[in-house]
Amino acid sequence: MRIGILGTGVVGQTLGSGLTQLGHDVTLGSRSATNEKAAKWVRENGPHARQGTFADAAEFGEIVFNCTSGNVSLDALRAAGEANLEGKTLVDVSNPLDFSKGFPPTLTVCNTDSVAEQIQAAFPGAKVVKTLNTMNAGVMVDPALVPGDHDVFLSGNDAGAKAQVSDLLRSFGWRNIIDLGDITTARGVEMVLPLWLRLMGAFKSPIMNFHIAR
Amino acid sequence: MRIGILGTGVVGQTLGSGLTQLGHDVTLGSRSATNEKAAKWVRENGPHARQGTFADAAEFGEIVFNCTSGNVSLDALRAAGEANLEGKTLVDVSNPLDFSKGFPPTLTVCNTDSVAEQIQAAFPGAKVVKTLNTMNAGVMVDPALVPGDHDVFLSGNDAGAKAQVSDLLRSFGWRNIIDLGDITTARGVEMVLPLWLRLMGAFKSPIMNFHIAR
Repeated sequence: MRIGILGTGVVGQTLGSGLTQLGHDVTLGSRSATNEKAAKWVRENGPHARQGTFADAAEFGEIVFNCTSGNVSLDALRAAGEANLEGKTLVDVSNPLDFSKGFPPTLTVCNTDSVAEQIQAAFPGAKVVKTLNTMNAGVMVDPALVPGDHDVFLSGNDAGAKAQVSDLLRSFGWRNIIDLGDITTARGVEMVLPLWLRLMGAFKSPIMNFHIAR
Repeated sequence: MRIGILGTGVVGQTLGSGLTQLGHDVTLGSRSATNEKAAKWVRENGPHARQGTFADAAEFGEIVFNCTSGNVSLDALRAAGEANLEGKTLVDVSNPLDFSKGFPPTLTVCNTDSVAEQIQAAFPGAKVVKTLNTMNAGVMVDPALVPGDHDVFLSGNDAGAKAQVSDLLRSFGWRNIIDLGDITTARGVEMVLPLWLRLMGAFKSPIMNFHIAR
């Protein structure tokens, strides 16, 4: 499958590498078509990896992943272009963390809204699915890094898009996929980041994940 | 031990019953010394159970539990009286849920502050410990209701108070007690309520709990 990834940070690169290793063709998109981090990633990830602008990546992808910081996601998606997102599954992995006042960061949107809802409202032709934002990038593509049962959450308005994302998640090894409901449930998963960050502090490791025992 | 509980709702009554069953003496406090719900609870819970005003309960307790709604906790604690809380462990179980605009509720404080921090700031002589707010009341006093490993979180500035609360939690059967750090970490556990409520909707049951796999 052709996949466009917006964002060249750790999350975008790690998801991109995981997807190329599964045989998908991935374009990593950034503001610049010649972004240095993306160029290095292309060199390291073989023939399925390429780079381009946000618009190049979004146009390329049958599915598009938003791996930009939640604070700039709307800007990045506008640069990607509404037409390049139309009718596509748009997987939103972002978190709106603001580190400008130090640790712990705060969220720039929460409680009555979420990044995922803002994206769905701004791009009504895209099928936004929020997922994977509640864990470390390494765990996203290799859930076996964390022992035992643990879970990934899904939020979105389109059942077909959620099924498509679930298939991708299963190909990474995910077994416990919890469908929370429509895109407004993304508030819940975005608001767990402050706890996640404190847990990372308590355990001195990001290799952990949430599980709902029941 | 003598324990004062502020709040006569499901959480206060359930914690009160659990504590009397462990042999503690419990006063359930409310605005009125003759609150009907508290009177019924006293009749049903035997010789270790009594009722009174918020001030009666706080004065009685060697430990005090805040089981009022997070939106009115500061008022309830002012009614309890600063002198009655001085030097005591004050266990804050509250959540600042606002259902006034329907479901899903929002939080009246979050992100840059928390109820627990507000309480600690208003009552600096009390040793505030946030815990147990991330689960159903029945699970608080009987963690075995949920199968498998699952966790309870602790936030607070006073190590001795956290150790005292941990002992109480262990007497309820808790094995996985995660100390997140100081009272500012309460933001994290208060902000998971929106996810908890959506999980309850997805699973159609409140008998579940968070576990951090690692």
